[in-house]
Amino acid sequence: MTIVDDLKQALGDIVLTGTQIGERHRSDASLTGRELPKAVIRPTSSGEIATALRLCNENGQTVVVQGGLTGLAGGANAGKDAVVISLERYTGIEEIDPQAGTMTVRAGTPLEVAQRAAEDAGFLLPIDLGARGSCQIGGNLATNAGGIRVLRYGVTRDNVLGLEAVLADGTIISSLNKMIKNNTGYDLRQFFIGSEGTLGVITRAVLRLRPLPAGRLTALCALESYDDLVAFLTRCQRRLPGLSAFEAMWENYFRFNAEAEKLKFFDEIPPFAVIVEQDLLGDASERDGFEAFLGEALEDGIIADALIAQSEKESRSFWSVREGHAMDSQLPALVNLDVSLPIGDIGRFAAECGAALSQRFPAAHVSFFGHVADSNLHIAFSEPDSDADTPHIVDGIVYEIVRRYKGSISAEHGIGTLKRDFLDHSRSPAELELMHRIKRALDPNGILNPGKVI
Amino acid sequence: MTIVDDLKQALGDIVLTGTQIGERHRSDASLTGRELPKAVIRPTSSGEIATALRLCNENGQTVVVQGGLTGLAGGANAGKDAVVISLERYTGIEEIDPQAGTMTVRAGTPLEVAQRAAEDAGFLLPIDLGARGSCQIGGNLATNAGGIRVLRYGVTRDNVLGLEAVLADGTIISSLNKMIKNNTGYDLRQFFIGSEGTLGVITRAVLRLRPLPAGRLTALCALESYDDLVAFLTRCQRRLPGLSAFEAMWENYFRFNAEAEKLKFFDEIPPFAVIVEQDLLGDASERDGFEAFLGEALEDGIIADALIAQSEKESRSFWSVREGHAMDSQLPALVNLDVSLPIGDIGRFAAECGAALSQRFPAAHVSFFGHVADSNLHIAFSEPDSDADTPHIVDGIVYEIVRRYKGSISAEHGIGTLKRDFLDHSRSPAELELMHRIKRALDPNGILNPGKVI
Repeated sequence: MTIVDDLKQALGDIVLTGTQIGERHRSDASLTGRELPKAVIRPTSSGEIATALRLCNENGQTVVVQGGLTGLAGGANAGKDAVVISLERYTGIEEIDPQAGTMTVRAGTPLEVAQRAAEDAGFLLPIDLGARGSCQIGGNLATNAGGIRVLRYGVTRDNVLGLEAVLADGTIISSLNKMIKNNTGYDLRQFFIGSEGTLGVITRAVLRLRPLPAGRLTALCALESYDDLVAFLTRCQRRLPGLSAFEAMWENYFRFNAEAEKLKFFDEIPPFAVIVEQDLLGDASERDGFEAFLGEALEDGIIADALIAQSEKESRSFWSVREGHAMDSQLPALVNLDVSLPIGDIGRFAAECGAALSQRFPAAHVSFFGHVADSNLHIAFSEPDSDADTPHIVDGIVYEIVRRYKGSISAEHGIGTLKRDFLDHSRSPAELELMHRIKRALDPNGILNPGKVI
Repeated sequence: MTIVDDLKQALGDIVLTGTQIGERHRSDASLTGRELPKAVIRPTSSGEIATALRLCNENGQTVVVQGGLTGLAGGANAGKDAVVISLERYTGIEEIDPQAGTMTVRAGTPLEVAQRAAEDAGFLLPIDLGARGSCQIGGNLATNAGGIRVLRYGVTRDNVLGLEAVLADGTIISSLNKMIKNNTGYDLRQFFIGSEGTLGVITRAVLRLRPLPAGRLTALCALESYDDLVAFLTRCQRRLPGLSAFEAMWENYFRFNAEAEKLKFFDEIPPFAVIVEQDLLGDASERDGFEAFLGEALEDGIIADALIAQSEKESRSFWSVREGHAMDSQLPALVNLDVSLPIGDIGRFAAECGAALSQRFPAAHVSFFGHVADSNLHIAFSEPDSDADTPHIVDGIVYEIVRRYKGSISAEHGIGTLKRDFLDHSRSPAELELMHRIKRALDPNGILNPGKVI
């Protein structure tokens, strides 16, 4: 009997093979996966996941977990020799505890479904990112997803109170804690969050909920320099207690997307544009305070111009420029790089990086945007004459500069397969050796997501 | 040559033995340590710590790290066979980066020294607890210290961006990251934070700083029931964006400490008293808003009475009751238990726990207080006829009820030696086995803080 026969015997028709396997299991959103896996298992319980892993571990069979397949680092690509565990059927919210302010949720639940359930109960689930409609909670946790509300509510890691995961050998580690403070031995949830499926399979989680804001105020500001931008960020952090987004766009990025969306906000495209958003408590004076705050920043010359959204529609028009969906369709072979740098260095880094890329690729589009308050910069790159080697050359140029600035080659996308060769640009040999030691301890047969991360 | 001779030869006169060793190295603040260690090493660099660990590891010599010795779980007690590494001379702030909002600090730096340095630079270091004058940053991190500002700024883990630690074999793991988002492989800092010195020695850290509040408003509120208290907490969280403390006192606790301090706040001692504190931005209207908020809660019958501190002195008088220093001197053999429960269950838990303790110890003082917003309850227990077995009997009674409520036997004090026998009340066999697996991977010879935590 082959391992696939074993799995079918133990788990029945939740094990798909051959033509039963859908095309989508080939690759995550990086579109770099080429092959379909040898089998896809679609469990509906943690016990089924444990059984599958136990059998695979005993047979040395490699396993790749797939969620919403929205990752950009190739972390969920399986290849033809792996068995895939797809969490798409292990969905649902098991409990919302309004007094503890927690939600217990299964890993396959789409993020947006969980967000809506929280809202229906009067709470905010602060984990939020562009792919909310298709990404799944398990994948959000496995990659420690970042997103647009980190400034106020922290990264995904900070919003997970309890976790259940299955080890490579099929052991279920159930730590579905609902308490904020819990210092009873090692914090096991931390081992699995952000490990991209290489140390265990996340099956359920207790997420922290926050009060639902009564609304939001949104402004689009024009600035003259990166130094002004940092000064403005500092002031926003000190004076706007409900500050929930601070999204910066460099001139090129803003111009491209405003023109693509046929939107005109300022007389001239400014060197920097920033979306500032504040969560509201529902007090009538908050709008006046926001206007006064921006007026003062204008008077002091920290910002050059400011528009406050007068409607939900206008707020969405600001965000449409920031989200830049037009780039996907209009720029060929678009690459979105994701790096972190100390906040004070981002301006110089972007200038240096832009010059280096333009020197090597004179015809390329290069633009910058990002969650500057979280030290996170994205780079949009598109080369009309791109070939198979281009992405790797771009990575090499950018990550070499990241290394010199002591930055991180992955702020929020993870390492997956695509960034693995560059991990030593952000991590020392001692750190890498310790990661390998941890991997060997938790997955001694090396069956979980092989070749990913380390 | 003995290992102590080896250490002296390699490290010189930073190695103390015999009468050179101070009495304080016998025990942490639980006063349960009985013996002096065989040597005390007082390094002033990470390199010296690495050398000491390498030699000890090669010789199977056990090592206990000591910081400010303010722990309450026996975690830093050494015993006569261990070598102590005392971090008291490895102090100092290496850098404050105002743009990144970070402080890089050595592990032996007292918390209060770091707090003051942050303030001098216009920032708040939000890690804060009663022992701030003597506890050290390294110990705060090694125990994932909680404290009174968790509600607004998170536990210590959430305020650490970068970490340097030395492994048992002397390898220095330097991850002094200054970025909020960094998803480059496993998050190694998480392995050391909260591991109580059993997985490595924390030597330096990058801490996250926040804007320094312009001031604080403090109120003392009287409430009739635990349900009201939870409703009031929910309302505070939704309506006070700068909420930075919510400290609950049960009737017995409030009565004892108010009388001990000769302070009278309300006509009668209420069933529950709560200190609410709000960080200010410096806007003149904030005080009015705070008063209006409390007035509305009074009108709605959620609170029965409220006093707003009119001066720093009055605010300190509220806090003096909460801090309860009078108990230390007036109650014999005082025990301070530290547990976590889901917020909605704390009222019933306290009632049940109080009844069980009073039944077994009819003459004992039993009272409750805590950081309810963080799901954290403290229990003050004092038995006049206490003997050596009493603390263990009390632990047994309380932790058995904690187990039934699916709570945590340690919210913020850690496990150390004193809670180790009860760890299975909050952790499953699978979780404990995984902790042992991690311990074996990181410290295969078992030299680091032996017998602690697991």
